[in-house]
Amino acid sequence: MNEYKLSDITTGMEESFDVTVTDKMMEAFREITGDTNPLHTDPKFAAESGNKDRVCYGLLTSSFLSTLAGVYLPGRYSLIRSVEVKFVKPVYPGDELTIKGTVTEVNTDFSFFDMKVEIRNAEGEKVLRGKMQVGVTDMA
Amino acid sequence: MNEYKLSDITTGMEESFDVTVTDKMMEAFREITGDTNPLHTDPKFAAESGNKDRVCYGLLTSSFLSTLAGVYLPGRYSLIRSVEVKFVKPVYPGDELTIKGTVTEVNTDFSFFDMKVEIRNAEGEKVLRGKMQVGVTDMA
Repeated sequence: MNEYKLSDITTGMEESFDVTVTDKMMEAFREITGDTNPLHTDPKFAAESGNKDRVCYGLLTSSFLSTLAGVYLPGRYSLIRSVEVKFVKPVYPGDELTIKGTVTEVNTDFSFFDMKVEIRNAEGEKVLRGKMQVGVTDMA
Repeated sequence: MNEYKLSDITTGMEESFDVTVTDKMMEAFREITGDTNPLHTDPKFAAESGNKDRVCYGLLTSSFLSTLAGVYLPGRYSLIRSVEVKFVKPVYPGDELTIKGTVTEVNTDFSFFDMKVEIRNAEGEKVLRGKMQVGVTDMA
């Protein structure tokens, strides 16, 4: 886990990591949320809207942004203030995703930074883009 | 599960439901994401920044918006296009949350609607506010 303090964060700084979306994650997310929508649980229903498999919950894909801030950038002293995401391509179970954040602005008066986020699949296609505002609880 | 089609959706329409955040949800979310940040796992660390307990992952609280769209509004024919959330008060394990969405605009040309979302705790305090754009895959 990174332990960047506010004074370590600079515009243009980047962090990224990879994850593979698994059936187990899909089931665990369904159990947490109770979202039993057939787009995410029924391959036949998903196929009717042109999908090759059940579609990964957009908010499951988004949940890796928690890890991006909480483990990588800034890591230990992270406090997420806001998140904005657009889902631009479907994600399927088995997809390997790369989650990446790039710092766009640092605010030392109010101890936060803004970052641009994007998630790509193994084909390099962007599946999610957005931004986050993240507070840093250690300013030293 | 509701099965609203685009033609059923009108501005001002509301849906809401309640959930209680459990330790089990916190653990399952940590397992899915790998977000081991101590704010969410270590009561002592959380207390150092003025919290009465481990803080619920903001993106776990947000994940109930998946259920709001996928089960309640519109339900079966939901396809979430974008989500914007601000975390305005901490959520703790054991908190009872009310998740509510209100339709603000319906776009029949491109088959989606916008909704304002808010999540409140049992004291009625708003813990999350934001908006979502949700496609409806059955326009009939």
